Amino acid sequence: MANSRFEYVKQFERENFLLPETHIVIRVDGKGFHKFSAHYGFDKPNDIRALNVMNRAAQAIVAQFPDIQMAYGDSDEYSFLLRRTCELFERREMKLVSTFASFMSVYYVMEWNREFPEKPLVIERLPTFDARAVVYPNAQTVRDYFSWRQVDCHINNLYNTTFWKLIEKCGMTGQEAENYLSGTVSSDKNEILFSKCGINYNNEPEIFKKGTVIVREYKEENHVESPSERQKQRIAKARKKAQISVLHVDIIKGDFWSQRPWLLE
Amino acid sequence: MANSRFEYVKQFERENFLLPETHIVIRVDGKGFHKFSAHYGFDKPNDIRALNVMNRAAQAIVAQFPDIQMAYGDSDEYSFLLRRTCELFERREMKLVSTFASFMSVYYVMEWNREFPEKPLVIERLPTFDARAVVYPNAQTVRDYFSWRQVDCHINNLYNTTFWKLIEKCGMTGQEAENYLSGTVSSDKNEILFSKCGINYNNEPEIFKKGTVIVREYKEENHVESPSERQKQRIAKARKKAQISVLHVDIIKGDFWSQRPWLLE
Amino acid sequence: MANSRFEYVKQFERENFLLPETHIVIRVDGKGFHKFSAHYGFDKPNDIRALNVMNRAAQAIVAQFPDIQMAYGDSDEYSFLLRRTCELFERREMKLVSTFASFMSVYYVMEWNREFPEKPLVIERLPTFDARAVVYPNAQTVRDYFSWRQVDCHINNLYNTTFWKLIEKCGMTGQEAENYLSGTVSSDKNEILFSKCGINYNNEPEIFKKGTVIVREYKEENHVESPSERQKQRIAKARKKAQISVLHVDIIKGDFWSQRPWLLE
Amino acid sequence: MANSRFEYVKQFERENFLLPETHIVIRVDGKGFHKFSAHYGFDKPNDIRALNVMNRAAQAIVAQFPDIQMAYGDSDEYSFLLRRTCELFERREMKLVSTFASFMSVYYVMEWNREFPEKPLVIERLPTFDARAVVYPNAQTVRDYFSWRQVDCHINNLYNTTFWKLIEKCGMTGQEAENYLSGTVSSDKNEILFSKCGINYNNEPEIFKKGTVIVREYKEENHVESPSERQKQRIAKARKKAQISVLHVDIIKGDFWSQRPWLLE
Repeated sequence: MANSRFEYVKQFERENFLLPETHIVIRVDGKGFHKFSAHYGFDKPNDIRALNVMNRAAQAIVAQFPDIQMAYGDSDEYSFLLRRTCELFERREMKLVSTFASFMSVYYVMEWNREFPEKPLVIERLPTFDARAVVYPNAQTVRDYFSWRQVDCHINNLYNTTFWKLIEKCGMTGQEAENYLSGTVSSDKNEILFSKCGINYNNEPEIFKKGTVIVREYKEENHVESPSERQKQRIAKARKKAQISVLHVDIIKGDFWSQRPWLLE
Repeated sequence: MANSRFEYVKQFERENFLLPETHIVIRVDGKGFHKFSAHYGFDKPNDIRALNVMNRAAQAIVAQFPDIQMAYGDSDEYSFLLRRTCELFERREMKLVSTFASFMSVYYVMEWNREFPEKPLVIERLPTFDARAVVYPNAQTVRDYFSWRQVDCHINNLYNTTFWKLIEKCGMTGQEAENYLSGTVSSDKNEILFSKCGINYNNEPEIFKKGTVIVREYKEENHVESPSERQKQRIAKARKKAQISVLHVDIIKGDFWSQRPWLLE
Repeated sequence: MANSRFEYVKQFERENFLLPETHIVIRVDGKGFHKFSAHYGFDKPNDIRALNVMNRAAQAIVAQFPDIQMAYGDSDEYSFLLRRTCELFERREMKLVSTFASFMSVYYVMEWNREFPEKPLVIERLPTFDARAVVYPNAQTVRDYFSWRQVDCHINNLYNTTFWKLIEKCGMTGQEAENYLSGTVSSDKNEILFSKCGINYNNEPEIFKKGTVIVREYKEENHVESPSERQKQRIAKARKKAQISVLHVDIIKGDFWSQRPWLLE
Repeated sequence: MANSRFEYVKQFERENFLLPETHIVIRVDGKGFHKFSAHYGFDKPNDIRALNVMNRAAQAIVAQFPDIQMAYGDSDEYSFLLRRTCELFERREMKLVSTFASFMSVYYVMEWNREFPEKPLVIERLPTFDARAVVYPNAQTVRDYFSWRQVDCHINNLYNTTFWKLIEKCGMTGQEAENYLSGTVSSDKNEILFSKCGINYNNEPEIFKKGTVIVREYKEENHVESPSERQKQRIAKARKKAQISVLHVDIIKGDFWSQRPWLLE
């Protein structure tokens, strides 16, 4: 029932219902985290406590939405994979991305306050996130998506590690380090790290090299074609209670996925 | 340059660039605020301190984004009107809605902590918001949009005021009050309020009856057809510095708009 | 390069690029064919010559666009299945649907003139078609789509056959036949046809009961991961030259598909 | 009611309802008309009989759809302007573009057969069209859209006229004429036409220089806020019966529009 003659303006609303039976990935991304990390004095190249804040916030989101099967993140971004048959918010794009951005933001604030009681957040420099949703139609494209993000993590971390070690151990300025690394490929950076800084990149912490994988260790048993309402509730409950693992492992090779066939159905 | 053979997955990303030269409205809406307000013990029918938190959070957003010309809100929702020629985030829908939801959430948390030091937020019950963007092609539809929201505020507030007064003043239970009001129209509720509770609805605070309007009091003078870069910067700066008013006034009739012709160009 | 200061209006154009790696189905549908068939005096319930016109027009489209793997049609509609990796018109939705509607229309006119030289088309009653594109993410949904259309063909044809035979053989009026069939299920109609009209529905022509399947009998051999330009051309040529079969067979059961695994990859 | 368990596949269909209260422009464009005109031996630079075919086909479309207020075309393209409040096909994008492409195609065929009985269309070279829909939010952008198309017509026609006259009158080859015109601006081409070919471009036929405007000369009188069903029918009937003018005039300057204020409301 219309509450007034103005209600016609609802006709201008548009919804994008994400294509059914596709895998939804929602990626949240920190806004202006370069300045944010400078303001709060993050350790370089990686601040393990700040990473913990990100990872705990992402974990809280995974716990919050049982439709999330796994998440992968590094630095100031996180990607969440929703079940192919997920009906969260009727798969409405705006609802999904705005809700994820909102939860990520407030969980980050809460976890920050726990982790950094000595660094209270100031209103001029708050942690905010944007989000986008992308749908992938099949298992291969989902795996390639996560490979893309993990390769990106590797490339950035190798660069940042080398850059900051050149400054720290060799006394270079930022500009000098940048020039020095210009045009180098991965093997060059490994070699520079080793010969100039005495560091074997392979020995760096896995959390920095691989990023963080959060996975709901849950296989839906006895997949039922047309579950009754009661069966649906039982499944939903089991999914909610499923253990959530936090890992720092390779997700480009097949092992991670073959051990969890339910992720890609 | 592709960082890896996986980068092709970016081709699955889709963007909705909102139609140029239309007025963008972004509405943020509290998620589960019924439970939220119960958990933190809001005053009924209106908690003025909680409203202050909403209004200050919205004001912070208006200050943050100079493209916002005005905002209107009541209860747990707020609508932001962007300039017709606004190019914020290239008018990308997902970027806009996720960013607004994120800012609203963290500003709300910050303002909450200021206003309610005695009620610390718990992680199980955090304030989160979703957001949607709608475009309106002309002045009339923009005005009708805001009229729609203000009529909605009025209808809800009249109902809630009568409902809670019947409980408070006449000792009804919630169920009794609901039954009593079932099928009544506005004039009935005004009469009930007056005769049963001794309250003249007209004397209720404007902030409850009208909601809150936040407006950037800024007229772009000497509108230039093709401004130079320097002119653009000067305009942007002026817009940023413009005074922001907070009002509780009628925006359905013409006065509010005719006094600020720049809002609808 | 802009040809004039007006060229900015192109910014209002919007494109929907259909999601990559999904199966595109384009369905064309006759506009007002009820009146069209009445005007040109189609045989009832099926006009085999008019069906031939549809089928030849659809065949011409399949021959025209090598990206089409198969097509299915009955009555005044046809569905075309494009290869999952098809890049026709960069997968632009408007370009695809308008082009298919246009080709279907002109081929229909040409084939009509060949088949019905005694019934020249008049400008007040021309054969026109609209079209829509739908994407399906996997083999199962593609098969279910075509099953949906073939079930629809069956239901319509069984109804129409019974309806017209009641008129023809039992002397009912249209209204009487409609009332007679109201509320009947398939088995009832089979029984009515048999007992009242002496017709065994199973013996009706397959083209009426099953509709028409057009399939490019082409398996891309030696699927190459990253084909060279020369290989691509060779594949495209082979696809173009592939034999096109016209069948009236069941496509709901698995046989049709298992014999042509390349259709669903 | 679902006719079968396969009907769920309809959930994959997506509709783009074009934004209400915006001006819809549908532009149809000939596919491969370069080859088409070569095959059927069009006069160069303009074939007046082929233009007549286009214009009559477009006129038939304007007559067919009373929601069309005006149309503008030249060469092998035509743009149709629909009323701002038009509800044709519920403003569904795919339905609109496919239907317009279909009608344009069959009307073109019919008009071709009338105009060129000596040149029967062959199935290998049929006239087909694609179509796109664009929405414009206000009067200025609509006017600029049509200005854009008329400037385009002018630029193309001036080039083509000069190019073909150099071949015809000065005995140049196509390559020579192309080289000769390379880098020239409008005034150069006017001068070349005059000095080398003795032609004053201003004296060329208006239909070539300006293109063709088709306009429904209809002002909705006594605009009613909420018309009754009977009033609606009367208005629709009047619109249908309105006279349709065919003009070759300037639509960049204001006169055309100020004489027909109803076009832009």
